[in-house]
Amino acid sequence: MIKNFDELLQLCRQKTDKKTAVIAAAQTESAIEAAVIAAAENLTKCLLVGDKAAIEAIIAEKFSAYNGCFEIIDTGADLQKACAVAVQTIHEGKAGLILKGKADTALLLKAVLDKEKGLSTGEVISDVFAYETPEKVVLLTDGGIVLYPDLKEKISLIKNAVKVAHSLGNPNPKVALLSAVEVVNPKMPCTLDAAIITKMNQRGQITGCVIDGPLALDNAIDIESAKIKGIDSPVAGHADILIAPNIEAANIFAKSLTYYAKYRVAHVVMGTKAPILIASRADAAEVKMLCLAMGIVCSG
Amino acid sequence: MIKNFDELLQLCRQKTDKKTAVIAAAQTESAIEAAVIAAAENLTKCLLVGDKAAIEAIIAEKFSAYNGCFEIIDTGADLQKACAVAVQTIHEGKAGLILKGKADTALLLKAVLDKEKGLSTGEVISDVFAYETPEKVVLLTDGGIVLYPDLKEKISLIKNAVKVAHSLGNPNPKVALLSAVEVVNPKMPCTLDAAIITKMNQRGQITGCVIDGPLALDNAIDIESAKIKGIDSPVAGHADILIAPNIEAANIFAKSLTYYAKYRVAHVVMGTKAPILIASRADAAEVKMLCLAMGIVCSG
Repeated sequence: MIKNFDELLQLCRQKTDKKTAVIAAAQTESAIEAAVIAAAENLTKCLLVGDKAAIEAIIAEKFSAYNGCFEIIDTGADLQKACAVAVQTIHEGKAGLILKGKADTALLLKAVLDKEKGLSTGEVISDVFAYETPEKVVLLTDGGIVLYPDLKEKISLIKNAVKVAHSLGNPNPKVALLSAVEVVNPKMPCTLDAAIITKMNQRGQITGCVIDGPLALDNAIDIESAKIKGIDSPVAGHADILIAPNIEAANIFAKSLTYYAKYRVAHVVMGTKAPILIASRADAAEVKMLCLAMGIVCSG
Repeated sequence: MIKNFDELLQLCRQKTDKKTAVIAAAQTESAIEAAVIAAAENLTKCLLVGDKAAIEAIIAEKFSAYNGCFEIIDTGADLQKACAVAVQTIHEGKAGLILKGKADTALLLKAVLDKEKGLSTGEVISDVFAYETPEKVVLLTDGGIVLYPDLKEKISLIKNAVKVAHSLGNPNPKVALLSAVEVVNPKMPCTLDAAIITKMNQRGQITGCVIDGPLALDNAIDIESAKIKGIDSPVAGHADILIAPNIEAANIFAKSLTYYAKYRVAHVVMGTKAPILIASRADAAEVKMLCLAMGIVCSG
């Protein structure tokens, strides 16, 4: 497993069969900035789908050094069409991951999940978030897409996150099912799900990872806390992946890592035929770069 | 409102009608350490209830400078009796807050909530957590007691936290009802509760604070994030109190502040006739000191 995000960038640059990133509705400064970062940082090529005239105008005004550097597929101003064409480029093998441009997340996901022309694999799609502590990179899910995962959905969240961990070089990540406590409590449904999923992993029904739960955050990430509580677990204190019980827990936690702990973060949507990056307009250039690297490493 | 925990300690030391803290089942090193901190830091007097011989033995062995310094009520080795007697000292006016000693939290709360002899006010009891950012002290609830608060319970959580904010010198705290998003979404029940509670506050049904929600954490605490989202709110960007939608969200968030952001924290249980401190054995001396100061400031 990569130890930090500098190693993520290195992993991305060294990837041999690197896929092109397609930007859906690229006629916005933020999206073109992502394409410029991908080029400048030697991450991958970008294919821009959208309003060609508008895209070229933004490049000329804001990123003139990149005039003529990007391949553009003109779909006019229609955002829905841009999303559909971007999805099509994945099917055609022209690109291996999708970046959100001017279209909002819901519109892009609609094209991605289209039953006939979309990229669904039948799996639940979920957002896998990564953060860089001074010691390691940890994955957290799902603070963005699945609201209140049931047992089956939690297993999908695990599979999607495990796939990311594998791509990041960890063949057997330790997965902690988070709760507020480390004991099974019939009044706390997520502790029951955690016990069940742990057993499924022991029985070989979920593979490619070692799962344990319920665990409180301190038991999951801090070996001293796990020892004080006397928790006998292959995961406690060493979790690589944290599965939150609900979207609020994951979302608030993720934001606390950004705003309070000041950690570097990245995230990627998994569960479709190609990773999807839904970084927001407000994201800093560094976040965009790290999301791109994560998406590229997880594609193909 | 106090700006940091040094001001909390100052507020505590300057309090004129300071209450004594009673320790329920004090025959454990961790509890006596709290009493020693209270004395050494000039916070308040402690009354030790429990196994007198065992208490004196611990003092003699570990804190010999404090031999004979504490008043002790002997209840023998019976933990339940120690909790009941500690509660009784509150009724008798001998003490104004309770510290957990050797008895576990459940046993102490059983005595506190006893219908005949307890300290119930009819209000829901909840844990109010405080953390110190570089800019301010923020309150968060409830990561410890109420599992999945319904609308009515959330109002109790707010009242308990607002009482703490008032004691900390903020007469009109800004309360944010946290969710993963800042929009009302019928599929996310906590966003509906947030909208309803906001309206109740506007109608004067919940007083002593300004409430707004739903808000995501970034919108609640970071004014730039609130501006980017175009949120028009008296609370956004300036929240003093954060109400989490469920115990997992609050608990994971609180632990992330301790383990990742490395913030100083404290917490106190409110909703009874006297504040209750349930700091754990594993808590560092500084956490115990800050919890004591918070409990003393919030008592009487």
